[in-house]
Amino acid sequence: MGPPKLRVLAKNPELARIGQRVQSLVGEDLQRVEATIATHLRSPYAPVAEMGAYLAASRGKRLRPILVLLCSRLIGYEGQKHILYAAVLEFIHTATLIHDDIVDQALLRRGRASLTSRWGPELAVLMGDRVFINAMHLAVKDGWNDVIPVISDTTLSLIEGELIQSHRKWDLTLQPEDNLEIVKRKTAHLFSTCCSTPAYLSGAPQDVRESLAAFGLNLGIAFQMVDDCLDFISDEATLGKPAGHDLKEGKITLPLLLLLERGTPDDKAFLEAVVAARRFDPETLREVAARVVESGMLEEAQRIASSYADEARAHLRGFPESPYREVLALMPEYIIRRHF
Amino acid sequence: MGPPKLRVLAKNPELARIGQRVQSLVGEDLQRVEATIATHLRSPYAPVAEMGAYLAASRGKRLRPILVLLCSRLIGYEGQKHILYAAVLEFIHTATLIHDDIVDQALLRRGRASLTSRWGPELAVLMGDRVFINAMHLAVKDGWNDVIPVISDTTLSLIEGELIQSHRKWDLTLQPEDNLEIVKRKTAHLFSTCCSTPAYLSGAPQDVRESLAAFGLNLGIAFQMVDDCLDFISDEATLGKPAGHDLKEGKITLPLLLLLERGTPDDKAFLEAVVAARRFDPETLREVAARVVESGMLEEAQRIASSYADEARAHLRGFPESPYREVLALMPEYIIRRHF
Repeated sequence: MGPPKLRVLAKNPELARIGQRVQSLVGEDLQRVEATIATHLRSPYAPVAEMGAYLAASRGKRLRPILVLLCSRLIGYEGQKHILYAAVLEFIHTATLIHDDIVDQALLRRGRASLTSRWGPELAVLMGDRVFINAMHLAVKDGWNDVIPVISDTTLSLIEGELIQSHRKWDLTLQPEDNLEIVKRKTAHLFSTCCSTPAYLSGAPQDVRESLAAFGLNLGIAFQMVDDCLDFISDEATLGKPAGHDLKEGKITLPLLLLLERGTPDDKAFLEAVVAARRFDPETLREVAARVVESGMLEEAQRIASSYADEARAHLRGFPESPYREVLALMPEYIIRRHF
Repeated sequence: MGPPKLRVLAKNPELARIGQRVQSLVGEDLQRVEATIATHLRSPYAPVAEMGAYLAASRGKRLRPILVLLCSRLIGYEGQKHILYAAVLEFIHTATLIHDDIVDQALLRRGRASLTSRWGPELAVLMGDRVFINAMHLAVKDGWNDVIPVISDTTLSLIEGELIQSHRKWDLTLQPEDNLEIVKRKTAHLFSTCCSTPAYLSGAPQDVRESLAAFGLNLGIAFQMVDDCLDFISDEATLGKPAGHDLKEGKITLPLLLLLERGTPDDKAFLEAVVAARRFDPETLREVAARVVESGMLEEAQRIASSYADEARAHLRGFPESPYREVLALMPEYIIRRHF
């Protein structure tokens, strides 16, 4: 049973075009966000400055700031605070990645050494704290806004999601609803807050805030579920980690839960034996991945992710037509199709 | 050269009397702070609830909440927010201890297993995050107060103090002014904010805020310096760690800096050789401690700590006489004499 093939569509011209449209709509704002991020990672203190420069250089896709910026334009926000808040929300994401890498003992992050593997877990714990607290500090020192407790609540939810996940490592009694709770907390609440923040900043009515929050929540669920699917069909070259790596870290994600629920007795027994023996060599992980694919459960998980993407799109319908709405409506598609 | 003797005065009747007076003045408030702390360490999620209950049960001296409560009474604050903020500031302290124990790989905290040794560093990283973020969340969800950015700034300072200290482990080129900076950031800024918080809560004039902040800052410096002194004359039975333990963790504190600056060439050479070889067996640490004591540098460090305690007291003079001022004026004495 060979490894399933990965169909990389990252260079798909349609997806590239979405990226270009985002760039043309909010590219200038995004540059200001980058400058804000870089500024607040500087420090007169050597270890902070070194790790800060390293973080500033290893930027990710900046999906969260992009959502803040696009939603700000969508609702016609005319202030300047969206730049600061986009940086704040990206910092919260960054801090969780730093601490996640300690929790998962991850050597790599975005194709480079993780902070914990390069500076050691001791400094990485403190740098993660620094980035977390600095995010909150940037928001509050700018003065009060009603979104501030929403952001702190979201951050709390995020950390509790990680705690629950870490606590239920390799727990095959996990139920799909537990997984949905983890997915919401780990990822979707922050997406939701990124989308609703501009509504708070501009004092938009409650229904606008709720539509944006619901768009972000469903988009975030779809995003995390796709991520969990990708884990089974990635290879070291494309995602920087071997297929099935999540299982090695103890993460029982949707495709595995579906296999446990709907796979053959042999699939279930195989998975239980692998987990009981903590047998996570590349060959075994590849077989797990192959069973997930061949049982149709990967496809089923993708289908579920797609339904959340559809739900996300539905929450945009109430907004007036604009290039911003158009490109936001493409985001679910972008997320779903990025590697399938 | 035997180990220096520890003169434990913790059961000194005079010190016990200060404790009783604190209890009679703010004991009821302190119980409400304890209840608030316990409430916010509860959780429906198993790992959070378990670690939370463990933390709630291993309370420390609650010095920081006591300062908030006494200073609130000193200035006649009539609201109720001092209870919440006392809990918030204690949570920030608690969170740093959880992460410190990971950084220092400490097995014990307050005579019991540390969170990191009992639940592992992975869950301890996340629980520390949870306590940090929950502290900020409790403050901001209560609504705006001008002290909020002061608290986030103080927390940032605290973390950067730890980062600097961790970065300069076993660095014998550290200067006394670097040490003072670390002491301020690690400890004194939080003491200062505990004392000035009631002034923000009650909208007291700037000079009241500044006097309270200066009292707390100097008290905090004295407290940390005494702590650093105690390390050289403690033994496992009284402080739960062997004499000279800080050096093993890489902390070059004031008594050592004084020995490097003013000790004999032999003292200096000995210390350099110990650090170069990372020779931290109990026998060597005992000799380091003995040299610190016999050179008179421990006494000199205590003298410097006392001068900060005097400075702290001086900042109380502008307040009208009251039992609260009286007991606050005894705090420096309490801190200085607790184990000498």
